[in-house]
Amino acid sequence: MSHTSDQPAQATPSVILELICYDREHYERADGVALEELLKKINPDRINWVNVDGLFDTDITEKLQAHFNLHALLIDDVLNDQRPKTEEYDDCLYFTLKMLYSINGENIEYEQISFVLGSHYLISFQEKEGDLFDFFRERIRLDQGRVRKKKVDYLLYRLIDIIVDNYYNVLDAIGNQIEEIEENLSENQSEHTFQRIQKLKKELIFLRKAVYPLRDALSKLVKDKSDFIEEENLRYFDDVYDHVVHLLDSLDTYKDLTSSLMDIHINTQNNQLNKVIKVLTIISTIFIPLTFIVGVYGMNFRHFPELEWTYGYPLIWAIMLVLAIGMLVYFRFKKWF
Amino acid sequence: MSHTSDQPAQATPSVILELICYDREHYERADGVALEELLKKINPDRINWVNVDGLFDTDITEKLQAHFNLHALLIDDVLNDQRPKTEEYDDCLYFTLKMLYSINGENIEYEQISFVLGSHYLISFQEKEGDLFDFFRERIRLDQGRVRKKKVDYLLYRLIDIIVDNYYNVLDAIGNQIEEIEENLSENQSEHTFQRIQKLKKELIFLRKAVYPLRDALSKLVKDKSDFIEEENLRYFDDVYDHVVHLLDSLDTYKDLTSSLMDIHINTQNNQLNKVIKVLTIISTIFIPLTFIVGVYGMNFRHFPELEWTYGYPLIWAIMLVLAIGMLVYFRFKKWF
Amino acid sequence: MSHTSDQPAQATPSVILELICYDREHYERADGVALEELLKKINPDRINWVNVDGLFDTDITEKLQAHFNLHALLIDDVLNDQRPKTEEYDDCLYFTLKMLYSINGENIEYEQISFVLGSHYLISFQEKEGDLFDFFRERIRLDQGRVRKKKVDYLLYRLIDIIVDNYYNVLDAIGNQIEEIEENLSENQSEHTFQRIQKLKKELIFLRKAVYPLRDALSKLVKDKSDFIEEENLRYFDDVYDHVVHLLDSLDTYKDLTSSLMDIHINTQNNQLNKVIKVLTIISTIFIPLTFIVGVYGMNFRHFPELEWTYGYPLIWAIMLVLAIGMLVYFRFKKWF
Amino acid sequence: MSHTSDQPAQATPSVILELICYDREHYERADGVALEELLKKINPDRINWVNVDGLFDTDITEKLQAHFNLHALLIDDVLNDQRPKTEEYDDCLYFTLKMLYSINGENIEYEQISFVLGSHYLISFQEKEGDLFDFFRERIRLDQGRVRKKKVDYLLYRLIDIIVDNYYNVLDAIGNQIEEIEENLSENQSEHTFQRIQKLKKELIFLRKAVYPLRDALSKLVKDKSDFIEEENLRYFDDVYDHVVHLLDSLDTYKDLTSSLMDIHINTQNNQLNKVIKVLTIISTIFIPLTFIVGVYGMNFRHFPELEWTYGYPLIWAIMLVLAIGMLVYFRFKKWF
Amino acid sequence: MSHTSDQPAQATPSVILELICYDREHYERADGVALEELLKKINPDRINWVNVDGLFDTDITEKLQAHFNLHALLIDDVLNDQRPKTEEYDDCLYFTLKMLYSINGENIEYEQISFVLGSHYLISFQEKEGDLFDFFRERIRLDQGRVRKKKVDYLLYRLIDIIVDNYYNVLDAIGNQIEEIEENLSENQSEHTFQRIQKLKKELIFLRKAVYPLRDALSKLVKDKSDFIEEENLRYFDDVYDHVVHLLDSLDTYKDLTSSLMDIHINTQNNQLNKVIKVLTIISTIFIPLTFIVGVYGMNFRHFPELEWTYGYPLIWAIMLVLAIGMLVYFRFKKWF
Repeated sequence: MSHTSDQPAQATPSVILELICYDREHYERADGVALEELLKKINPDRINWVNVDGLFDTDITEKLQAHFNLHALLIDDVLNDQRPKTEEYDDCLYFTLKMLYSINGENIEYEQISFVLGSHYLISFQEKEGDLFDFFRERIRLDQGRVRKKKVDYLLYRLIDIIVDNYYNVLDAIGNQIEEIEENLSENQSEHTFQRIQKLKKELIFLRKAVYPLRDALSKLVKDKSDFIEEENLRYFDDVYDHVVHLLDSLDTYKDLTSSLMDIHINTQNNQLNKVIKVLTIISTIFIPLTFIVGVYGMNFRHFPELEWTYGYPLIWAIMLVLAIGMLVYFRFKKWF
Repeated sequence: MSHTSDQPAQATPSVILELICYDREHYERADGVALEELLKKINPDRINWVNVDGLFDTDITEKLQAHFNLHALLIDDVLNDQRPKTEEYDDCLYFTLKMLYSINGENIEYEQISFVLGSHYLISFQEKEGDLFDFFRERIRLDQGRVRKKKVDYLLYRLIDIIVDNYYNVLDAIGNQIEEIEENLSENQSEHTFQRIQKLKKELIFLRKAVYPLRDALSKLVKDKSDFIEEENLRYFDDVYDHVVHLLDSLDTYKDLTSSLMDIHINTQNNQLNKVIKVLTIISTIFIPLTFIVGVYGMNFRHFPELEWTYGYPLIWAIMLVLAIGMLVYFRFKKWF
Repeated sequence: MSHTSDQPAQATPSVILELICYDREHYERADGVALEELLKKINPDRINWVNVDGLFDTDITEKLQAHFNLHALLIDDVLNDQRPKTEEYDDCLYFTLKMLYSINGENIEYEQISFVLGSHYLISFQEKEGDLFDFFRERIRLDQGRVRKKKVDYLLYRLIDIIVDNYYNVLDAIGNQIEEIEENLSENQSEHTFQRIQKLKKELIFLRKAVYPLRDALSKLVKDKSDFIEEENLRYFDDVYDHVVHLLDSLDTYKDLTSSLMDIHINTQNNQLNKVIKVLTIISTIFIPLTFIVGVYGMNFRHFPELEWTYGYPLIWAIMLVLAIGMLVYFRFKKWF
Repeated sequence: MSHTSDQPAQATPSVILELICYDREHYERADGVALEELLKKINPDRINWVNVDGLFDTDITEKLQAHFNLHALLIDDVLNDQRPKTEEYDDCLYFTLKMLYSINGENIEYEQISFVLGSHYLISFQEKEGDLFDFFRERIRLDQGRVRKKKVDYLLYRLIDIIVDNYYNVLDAIGNQIEEIEENLSENQSEHTFQRIQKLKKELIFLRKAVYPLRDALSKLVKDKSDFIEEENLRYFDDVYDHVVHLLDSLDTYKDLTSSLMDIHINTQNNQLNKVIKVLTIISTIFIPLTFIVGVYGMNFRHFPELEWTYGYPLIWAIMLVLAIGMLVYFRFKKWF
Repeated sequence: MSHTSDQPAQATPSVILELICYDREHYERADGVALEELLKKINPDRINWVNVDGLFDTDITEKLQAHFNLHALLIDDVLNDQRPKTEEYDDCLYFTLKMLYSINGENIEYEQISFVLGSHYLISFQEKEGDLFDFFRERIRLDQGRVRKKKVDYLLYRLIDIIVDNYYNVLDAIGNQIEEIEENLSENQSEHTFQRIQKLKKELIFLRKAVYPLRDALSKLVKDKSDFIEEENLRYFDDVYDHVVHLLDSLDTYKDLTSSLMDIHINTQNNQLNKVIKVLTIISTIFIPLTFIVGVYGMNFRHFPELEWTYGYPLIWAIMLVLAIGMLVYFRFKKWF
């Protein structure tokens, strides 16, 4: 039905399921149990966060689809690469975006995460194990912040907010790299610098691809006023929207700065080449005429009066010195060195 | 009436006609029969997919126009090169887009395909024989998937979806090429690389021309809520729309990456030139002064004291060695090599 | 009243008037008669196409203005250079666009043509004699196609359509030129090529200026649903609109292709320069050290042991050969040639 | 209250006041009188055009503000540099734009002109003495054209129209310069050319800054349907709007042409450099090996068989000639000269 | 809750609080008092401006939040870096923008300032001590201008206006720098120039990031017609909006001018390189053939007729002079120097 649905799953790593079920008074967490058991534990009077790590087991997605009565297209979207978007269905809201991981700001990895928000549940589908939410899970358990006092839509906001906040960390790392490269640019100029700038540019291209549609997705979420999000909580999603717009501003700024780095790099390179060519020209321009002069007096003509002069040799040295100094003065005047 | 209608058809290869008529219980396929016979087999109670391969026989298009009561402009649009668009007529819906064929991702061929969707029929007009639907025809016959359970508008969705899904294959091939070129760029640098980058750029230009208007066409289809598409099936077309937007994001990304490749190519080229010029400068700067010195002692002055010195010759070697090594040290210090 | 109305007409070539008056049964054509006579022949029950070639006779425009009760601004617009636009007046509709002539696709000439559409008449104002409509006039006379069966708004559509269709011919000629240049680029590289690319770029700049506003003008025509165009004929204008959008897509594509040509041109030029510099460097790098060596043995030191050796001369040749071959091998290894 | 209100007026040149008061039958002009006297002469039953040249006398602006009951912000806007805009107040309409002066199309000077349109008066505030309206003042006096038959809003239209029409003159001068530079580019190439192109670019940048917001200002004027402009006269302002859009098209075209000029300039420069480098390479490549050869036979080896040969000298000349001609043929074959 | 809320405040410099409480008749200022005391002094019947310098004391922000009943997200926004925006809450209006400081137009510093506008109070949160309002505080005290006669929304307008007016000073300083660099460009060309241009470009990038979203924020303020701003005062905010749009125009112009500076810089650099290469070529092309000639007559062939000629030596000088002069004439003809 979708563009990659024909590809069979290469391997079937085990899918990890987790349920966090809570309300103001209760908190329960189920981990590592079978899907059927997990579904039984869902309590419609509480908030149920079902987290699915790994999407390879079609059996599980089918059962989830059946249990929560999800649309076939929704499951298609969960399973395939999507641009960040929001989609409202009859009995749930679908939201997908990219989760970023960055190791020392060097390599950014992208993981698609999809949320299905129902009246009393939130399902999060992750491609790989591991996420950014461990700290937040602990906050739920310990009843810190507002999350236990709010409905399931606030839970969705918090998860999106955590992912978007992490974008700032990634962007800060890129900002630091830009500054670092800029400082080095004036000092020394190596092939390595160019490759780092190109790498940055590439990272910004991919970041933009992940963040730009997210703005539209959030804007749609806020403007459509979905039934699954309470009126008073729209402000929170609006706030995330503002963050994303701010991020895009920064991305644009970083893109401009990277272009500027390229300009500086190219200019430095040209300057170096110019200096090299100037050295070549100075040396050639001084010595080529001198070599001609000594060549003249190396000729073997029988009738060659200068060669007989007593002070011919020192005279020729004097002439050549005057010539060389004269040219050096000229080049200095022309600011060639 | 249209911009190429004055051109006579150069040759008249035989037009291939095909009818697939089905509903939940029945399936019938007519192939290679004459048009009149085929039109008789159309069953208004079932779903009738009329496929026309080759558009050269004006007789056939006229008969189809008469039988289905099609507007003259619609037939004009079918026969001439169009940008992807959707057009609603009184008793049918017209949709046209480009079908892509790619042999190893190297050369992309474009074929215009037009759909005319009526209440109980779908006509597909193709320029050439052969399409991407063989696998899907088999699915209809075997009653796999939802197609036999749905109306004729779902059939249109499926055909468009198959074409758009194939865009991903083409794009993936381009993505692979970009990565391949990028890996080779750092290793060796040939004229061939530049030509490959230019070819990619050109392919992306033409792809954009085919895909960009498709977004508008699909958006119009979804927003206008045509009578020929059931409300509940609009979601499917919306999903194809999302895919096309995603494709455009990828096209933009690939365009940026190709620009980046060009930058790398140019930088590598400049680096190579700089290295060559540096070698020239080093060799010249070292040997031109030395050649001058040996020229001095090749002069034939009668009064030339140094020539008489016992250790004149080794001394001059010593001086020249000191000079040469000094310059090499200087260049090394300047990081010229 | 308008920006060029102060300029007096430099010369007054004779204005050519023509009236074609027709309906389903009748056809009459008046040519080369005086304006007064021509106006008398206008039959309000039939369709009257008044064609004015040459705009220099203010007397004629004034009489036409008076007879058809045209607004002063409309006449101003007819007489001065305008961007393509549509303007609805109380008792007529004004539409202006550029008519293109191309001799072998080399030089594109622009002529402004203005249409005034009334309830039973269409006036076309052309700057110069000669147009693209001769073939179509014949079709009216012979009652071919739909034109005699339709109202005057269909006549306007047909004339605009003919002009826009001719844009395709101009664009195709440009497309052919781009392909021709591209093929030549890889073969040889001359100053001429660069000039052709620049000329193409300039032609595309001017074409864009003529076609881009036409899109808005047609869009306004279709959306405003003027009283002078019948509801059912709007579809025809919409079709021309689609053609213009398609043209703009092609213009963008050609613009990108021309940029690409420039890139290829610059790259080829740089490659040539690089090759020249490499040749210079190879020759210099090989012979400058050799010249130094032979210079050494040209020195006139009295105490110069090597000069006395029996095999000194062949030995020095051997050394120089080893050096030269070594450097050639090195350059080959570095892929300099 | 505004960004430059803290700056005191450096000098206080005398402000020049002028009143033209007219209707269909009457015409009166007051010039060089004091403000109080002038205000007394204003006749609410006629059209009163108050023209203020020079804005330095705060006393006058304050009195005008009091007399016409103008908003403080309006006076602020009159006194400070503004982007072209239209602003409707309770009892007047404010419109400001730039008036251009060009001496031979070389230097473009900008003057801000502000209009305040009331029910029976129009005030025009100019920064400096002198304007483009002298010809038009004469037309009012002589009752030429429609102005005496129309209301005060038509007067505003005419003044704006005169200013915008003058933009065409400035733009034509720029167009002529572009053509002139283009013709010279192919002939000779001097530093001067580059400076002229840069000057043009700068002029276009500033022109765009003046004209672009004017489009929005006029569009707002037409769409807001102000009470101070009669319905039937909106068409006139719409016509000026069309002119401004046309001007912007031309500005874009000229910008593209100027970019194209830069490309041609850079290409010509590169071609010249390439030619110079080719000459250097040809001379070096021919003579460096030859110099080596003659160096060989300048060596002083005792055992040097060739030197003894009777035809050694002519032979070496022959070898060198063959070598030189061979290389020339090679370079010709490579199309280096 | 927000992207930097996890970071603890590194140090806790003292927060400076200030209250200015006034109406038409009264004026009171409290400075350096504790928060509790300050809050007591707030008089709901007057206008209360609470200014908070330094945001590090969470205790103070929490108390303010509690006292004025502020939303948690608002406090988050105050504490974290935001793009300029306006946000309406139930009982207050939030507005944030950047305040700029520039020392001699060299380095621009950005400080985020947030305003919370209630029915009778305005809170301004500044990151650092010191602002642009001292002059204005004095005007309030002395009852100059309109501020004491107006409501609290006018106070907000005045503060924003002062900040935006200061942008003009910063922009003027940049404009002066551009002119300064441009004048120097034609004279001498140093590495320093390039760095100044790059610095300007960077400053413009950051300025744009600060000013661009401000336009949207002000537009939203004006269009949303907040309850906290009186209808008649909207015009003032609209005026600031116009200033910001004018600023953006100037920013664009400066950006274009800076690009133009870069073009000039690069062109000057290329010209210099071309001149150097021409000198190299002239010197080489003249002396390399001459050196070859003198080399010829330095050969030691036994049979070498020319060497025996009486006028051989002066003849060779004559030939070389003719050659050198010929080449100089040729180069002059080619306009190489």
